Amino acid sequence: MQRTLTTSLASKIRQRATVQGWVHRRRRLGSISFLVIRDRSGLAQVVLGEHDDHRQLEQLSEETVVSVEGTVTANPKAPGGLELTCPRITPLSEPAATPPAELWRPSLNTTLPVFLDHAPVLWRHRTQQATWRLAAASVRGFRQALDTLGFTEICTPKLVGTSTESGANVFTVDYFGRRAYLAQSPQFYKQIMVGVFERVYETGPVFRAEPHDTVRHLAEYVSLDAELGFITDHRDVLAVLRKALAGMVSEIQAGAHDDAELIGASLPEVPEEIPTIHFRDALALVGADPSEPDLAPDHERHLGQWARRQYGSDFLAVEGYPASKRPFYTHPEPGDPRWTNSFDLLFRGLELVTGGQRLHRYTDYQRALAERGEPTGPYQSYLDTFRHGMPPHGGFALGLERWTARLIDADNIRRTTLFPRDLHRLAP
Amino acid sequence: MQRTLTTSLASKIRQRATVQGWVHRRRRLGSISFLVIRDRSGLAQVVLGEHDDHRQLEQLSEETVVSVEGTVTANPKAPGGLELTCPRITPLSEPAATPPAELWRPSLNTTLPVFLDHAPVLWRHRTQQATWRLAAASVRGFRQALDTLGFTEICTPKLVGTSTESGANVFTVDYFGRRAYLAQSPQFYKQIMVGVFERVYETGPVFRAEPHDTVRHLAEYVSLDAELGFITDHRDVLAVLRKALAGMVSEIQAGAHDDAELIGASLPEVPEEIPTIHFRDALALVGADPSEPDLAPDHERHLGQWARRQYGSDFLAVEGYPASKRPFYTHPEPGDPRWTNSFDLLFRGLELVTGGQRLHRYTDYQRALAERGEPTGPYQSYLDTFRHGMPPHGGFALGLERWTARLIDADNIRRTTLFPRDLHRLAP
Repeated sequence: MQRTLTTSLASKIRQRATVQGWVHRRRRLGSISFLVIRDRSGLAQVVLGEHDDHRQLEQLSEETVVSVEGTVTANPKAPGGLELTCPRITPLSEPAATPPAELWRPSLNTTLPVFLDHAPVLWRHRTQQATWRLAAASVRGFRQALDTLGFTEICTPKLVGTSTESGANVFTVDYFGRRAYLAQSPQFYKQIMVGVFERVYETGPVFRAEPHDTVRHLAEYVSLDAELGFITDHRDVLAVLRKALAGMVSEIQAGAHDDAELIGASLPEVPEEIPTIHFRDALALVGADPSEPDLAPDHERHLGQWARRQYGSDFLAVEGYPASKRPFYTHPEPGDPRWTNSFDLLFRGLELVTGGQRLHRYTDYQRALAERGEPTGPYQSYLDTFRHGMPPHGGFALGLERWTARLIDADNIRRTTLFPRDLHRLAP
Repeated sequence: MQRTLTTSLASKIRQRATVQGWVHRRRRLGSISFLVIRDRSGLAQVVLGEHDDHRQLEQLSEETVVSVEGTVTANPKAPGGLELTCPRITPLSEPAATPPAELWRPSLNTTLPVFLDHAPVLWRHRTQQATWRLAAASVRGFRQALDTLGFTEICTPKLVGTSTESGANVFTVDYFGRRAYLAQSPQFYKQIMVGVFERVYETGPVFRAEPHDTVRHLAEYVSLDAELGFITDHRDVLAVLRKALAGMVSEIQAGAHDDAELIGASLPEVPEEIPTIHFRDALALVGADPSEPDLAPDHERHLGQWARRQYGSDFLAVEGYPASKRPFYTHPEPGDPRWTNSFDLLFRGLELVTGGQRLHRYTDYQRALAERGEPTGPYQSYLDTFRHGMPPHGGFALGLERWTARLIDADNIRRTTLFPRDLHRLAP
């Protein structure tokens, strides 16, 4: 008999139907037994009455995979108002070993190390499922928004001969006896591809050999990258970022609304225009020394609260970051090269996105590298692109796991990463 | 003035409009000069007449980026029936250096080494743009088809502690002083995630330290992976693959039709059911020794022609490959364990996809590894998943670059890869 998803049983009331899934929970109440089956769509209750064989339940431990044919019966007391009665149960797996946590409970009360050690099984918990579905919907929304804006998706190499950001925090690979690196970002390639398609994006892994063990850093994460040409300045980049964020939120609402509700995710409103403050003014606002080259986490939190009060916005773009703290390809602020046409986007007081305008003239690159005392040699094939005509352009990068972590207010980014990699962890 | 894309100029006839793009070509014919501008949407011709200043053209070498304001004028002789007259031309970049090939010519007649060395600029050629747009549309179609079928997108780690396929052809990474590997496929993770979402896919890079220099192998490529639970056997996997392929073709038709036409791509019809032949019968058909464990390229070509004649199909699935040539997780053929429930999909006589049913019982994995004399230790966190209840499942992996190469009948997969990586090449 063809399988019916648990959420589609209502269309088969009073008929026989087959559901397939995991034994989510089993319970015996006197002469009646209940089996809750979980499939990708939801849950269904199976009832074994007086005339059914209850002994088979011994073999049907939680997480065992089964096929259950039964009569779809209305019962206002059952979850969803339906249950399967007079069941015929066929195991599809061996009896499952006891899971590392009770997956049927409403919340997954495990410590982070236990969760990470047993991630392959614990991601089955419905709150974890929902968490990842927010991530998946976000990526989908990101792509859809940029597709609509005429962007082309690209797939750039992760094995590179030169590290993107001056060689810090880079993993080295034995590449047929030579030394290669894992790309810390698709930065150079997405710029190159602006020369081809004007507007490009990539959603893929990036690699950072982060030597610090923090709740916000991973050695590998999913970066949502975009880059576009023919801009006036970084504000055009911010406008595209706004549309990407709006697309992400609206795809969660359209495709993962129940998941967001289940885990109490708090979806932001993306304002028509993201409020912006200059770095210099941000320092003043938080009472920091005007010579500070960066914002401390406390400052960011403070600014997030301010944006909430001042603009009713969860988002605040801080623009104009000092040149000294930005990579060499960053475009200076016209008229005052101490500052740059770059921004960080704070989301609820935490940095979510870094973006900005890049240099687009070859001679500007030569000058920028010379001023930093860096040789051009390692960058030559990248720099050559700018000798062949590049438009004013800019872009941004958004960390997927950080985004999801903020949506569900996770205390650690590892809670929103399928199989996180860090200083200590390389498995599962 | 707001920018108008070259393909939207028709809406501004007899008005002033601004186009922005690259100088595709410049020509002087007596007192008239022509400038063709290329943007992401197409080309537009700009005409400098008797009263215009032609000297500025000296600075406008091919590939220089410009902004051109002009009057949109109908001219049946102009490409697209329109041209910009009385232009005001503003360079947005420095005058571009001479490109490594004439990008305005209809085809890019460069040798492969020249193309690869100068890829950042040569991908600008319209046939190369079109080639990649086929790839991008294919990925989009793949995702859309699987989204519709209830699949969840996943992002699995590329840094792994254990190599997927017995340690051959794997890149090693210095991981904080320990040894890590680059994932050769998301195989283990996509199976694990079937336990969570039943149906999952991933589109991302995979890494193979291929020691051979062939026209069909890369050290890094984009793998389109899917895996699904609650199947009867590998034929259910093949049915999903069919829908994915149909989605890829139809998204090319919808979103990259002009590109396909420009480069003369030949799009396949995806039959309602992909014809299937057993490996044993395939050997007999091509007259090979029945003890052969694999198909030679010649055999595949022959089978492709046979499928074309017999079924009018560009696709042929060869099922039942010998267990000795398949990885340990492959499900045997019920009743005859010499064969397996796995398949290769030939597309026009070349292998495009490998797929099949996997083992789903823990004890089967123990037995399979023991029979091959392999220890279970390195796989333990993967194997544990099967102790906790896994449904019958299977999946497939399709190499994006191979797919595109077949569509355009490329002689080398490197022609369809943005920045290929191989034994010799790590840049650009």
